[in-house]
Amino acid sequence: MFFDKLSNLSGIHLIVLFYFSAALLSTFLLSIPYFHREGVEFSLLDSIFTAVSAISVTGLTVVSTADTFNTIGYFVLAFVLQFGGIGIMTLGTFIYLVLGKKIGIRTRQLIQIDQNRNTLAGLVQLMLKILRTILVIELFGAVVLSIYFLKYFDTWQEALIQGIFASVSATTNAGFDITGASLLPFAHDYFVQFVTILLLILGAIGFPVLLEIQEVLWGRYRNLEWKYQFSLYTKITTITFFILIVVGALGIFLFEHNHFLQGKAWHESLFYSLFQSVTTRNGGLATMEVAEFTTPTLLLLCALMFIGASPSSVGGGIRTTTFAIMMLAIFHYAKGHNTIKVFKREIDPEDVTRSFIVAITAILLCGSAIVFLIWIEPLSNMAIVFEVFSAFGTTGLSMGVTADFSVIGKIVIILLMFIGRIGIFSFLFLIRGEDVHDRYHYPKEKMIIG
Amino acid sequence: MFFDKLSNLSGIHLIVLFYFSAALLSTFLLSIPYFHREGVEFSLLDSIFTAVSAISVTGLTVVSTADTFNTIGYFVLAFVLQFGGIGIMTLGTFIYLVLGKKIGIRTRQLIQIDQNRNTLAGLVQLMLKILRTILVIELFGAVVLSIYFLKYFDTWQEALIQGIFASVSATTNAGFDITGASLLPFAHDYFVQFVTILLLILGAIGFPVLLEIQEVLWGRYRNLEWKYQFSLYTKITTITFFILIVVGALGIFLFEHNHFLQGKAWHESLFYSLFQSVTTRNGGLATMEVAEFTTPTLLLLCALMFIGASPSSVGGGIRTTTFAIMMLAIFHYAKGHNTIKVFKREIDPEDVTRSFIVAITAILLCGSAIVFLIWIEPLSNMAIVFEVFSAFGTTGLSMGVTADFSVIGKIVIILLMFIGRIGIFSFLFLIRGEDVHDRYHYPKEKMIIG
Ligand SMILES: [K+]
Ligand SMILES: [K+]
Repeated sequence: MFFDKLSNLSGIHLIVLFYFSAALLSTFLLSIPYFHREGVEFSLLDSIFTAVSAISVTGLTVVSTADTFNTIGYFVLAFVLQFGGIGIMTLGTFIYLVLGKKIGIRTRQLIQIDQNRNTLAGLVQLMLKILRTILVIELFGAVVLSIYFLKYFDTWQEALIQGIFASVSATTNAGFDITGASLLPFAHDYFVQFVTILLLILGAIGFPVLLEIQEVLWGRYRNLEWKYQFSLYTKITTITFFILIVVGALGIFLFEHNHFLQGKAWHESLFYSLFQSVTTRNGGLATMEVAEFTTPTLLLLCALMFIGASPSSVGGGIRTTTFAIMMLAIFHYAKGHNTIKVFKREIDPEDVTRSFIVAITAILLCGSAIVFLIWIEPLSNMAIVFEVFSAFGTTGLSMGVTADFSVIGKIVIILLMFIGRIGIFSFLFLIRGEDVHDRYHYPKEKMIIG
Repeated sequence: MFFDKLSNLSGIHLIVLFYFSAALLSTFLLSIPYFHREGVEFSLLDSIFTAVSAISVTGLTVVSTADTFNTIGYFVLAFVLQFGGIGIMTLGTFIYLVLGKKIGIRTRQLIQIDQNRNTLAGLVQLMLKILRTILVIELFGAVVLSIYFLKYFDTWQEALIQGIFASVSATTNAGFDITGASLLPFAHDYFVQFVTILLLILGAIGFPVLLEIQEVLWGRYRNLEWKYQFSLYTKITTITFFILIVVGALGIFLFEHNHFLQGKAWHESLFYSLFQSVTTRNGGLATMEVAEFTTPTLLLLCALMFIGASPSSVGGGIRTTTFAIMMLAIFHYAKGHNTIKVFKREIDPEDVTRSFIVAITAILLCGSAIVFLIWIEPLSNMAIVFEVFSAFGTTGLSMGVTADFSVIGKIVIILLMFIGRIGIFSFLFLIRGEDVHDRYHYPKEKMIIG
């Protein structure tokens, strides 16, 4: 009977329910004193905050991860990040398979919704591929970083723990750290930064892109006659992804070359700018205190965090595709075109409307949160604005005020992280009924716009 | 030959050209020393700023109007406000008629574009009605206020000048004042405020609404069988207009009852809240220093100014219809509907897309302006944010920093006022070519959104 009721819920409702359950489970896991260092006090609200931050791979923290959890706790946290990062649906599929159960159409639909894929075929294989891909990336990162960390840490055990955690945190774009100071200890270690940037990008660029690249790399379809055709989605999202990184880095350099970057060598400026730009795509790790930036840079970072990562990735925000389609729509409209043509394909008008709805809803959501938090919290306005966009983008960068929020303030941030992770699209579905295809129509009446 | 070239330009290009010429002419007029008080220094940039502010009926000022212009100057300024407020096209039509010239299809088209009407028929009569309507409203306001002002001013001449200017400034929502302190001298005079609110609303609610109301009031079509059907446009824009006023007033009261409104009587609180809410629709007059408000209130006012007035009115911003259609779209989408039905009519999907394009373009424009100005100006962030939204909404409220902007900063504000007045829609048309109706199509490919 309970399952009957479950299956009546729409797919997206179930996804939300699963994320919600995962957050509950994580809260329980992370509040077990056995995983804490001795003498640590960890309130329920802080447990919930940490759990939601971990399951949504945001990385905002109200307590120092390094000082709160012990070594076993680190692994539990890494597990939660993995759970949130790869997506509960992927893990769900995996568990289904491991338990030998056949995957029904309903579960397949769930997976489809979570990863937003339009074809149902081969979805189980797809999920397995995702899991395998992520694990391979993380393994690569963990090995490279662990070996390299021998240089920094006294024992190989510590290097290994730090390496594994850094790799998982970077690949899932979680933004958590057990160094106690994000990536600041490696502010001048370009190797660590380079590997981290690579892992961050692989995690945030979206699974569909990774899978299409794999298909090309593995040459499975490679023969002399055949030319691989990337999907429109992969082209648009990848180009947008890298344009945002370049624009972000240039912007940071422009605004900061007379401030934070003053007197620094070109390679230092390059890496600071590049790293902070990449990290807004979703990483949330930092090689410096973001509060040291000037206001224009902080606002630029807010915009980049708001756009966020690619869909079907570990990241949040309105997603790169949403932003790209809006820009294409405005550009094509300004040029007088009635359709949006790009790479010899046309964008579906419904996708255009959907993108704008997602963006405007997100702006209203973040805007209301900002006004509300400025109203109730005695914190700096800029820090609040930054925190809101960081939470909605599930980015996890902070000007260092996360722990200073009141109970209500923390709840608002928790909600923003949750909505950022499930996406505005799913958020709207939460309040959305069944699709209504009206059979009657009224006359259309033109309006006067803008 | 010159006229041949002119007629090749699209209608909106011409509108912009006319507004541009009007700004130039106003700059020239307002910089004539004969209209200034003795000993006044008035730089070219300040003349341009004042002229654009006047022609776009924004009301931001870099010099005190009261201290810069003499009595004749006041009337010249009132003329410029009239020119900008009623719309150059309306005046253009009038001049055409006065000079006995026949109005060609091209001019009719121009008028249509400026006032955004969808039917070409009877447009000349429409323009005459607009002019007559506004003049009647202004005359009413001037008579009432002049008589009432006898209470405040020593001579009837001064009361008359103040009354005429106040009426013109309120009806055109210009926001200019010759009291030297906006409406602060009347902070406790509810009669002046009530009349001003009435004039502000009549000016900002949009000509089409006024004309439809007239048709009802004059009973021209009134017979027992016939029931007047307001247009969908009038219904939506009017309801949105008043909802925004109520929400604004409630918001101001909520945020300020423990701050600015603390210890004030209920009628004082009511009038302060109501007046400041109405004035963001476009008036730009103030009964108090807005800088005294707390940040949440200021942000709320920014949002209200950004939305602005109704289309085909004296106001700016993205316009009430744009906002209303977006909200309806999000609401209907969340409810699972595939069409937007309201008042037994359907909204054209093209209007939905257009609304979102207008809003997102405006957000990008204002956002960029804010980051840029914060970068180059050593002023308070909040004051800059407020100034940008006030300029784009052609509202004219200010936290008192307008005169402190650098040359480049003033130019940015001038551009924002200009774009706010002509509207994002016309702004996009500026860079838009001829309509391209592609005869070929590419396959549509679905994307992953949000
Ligand atoms: K993150
Ligand atoms: K104004």
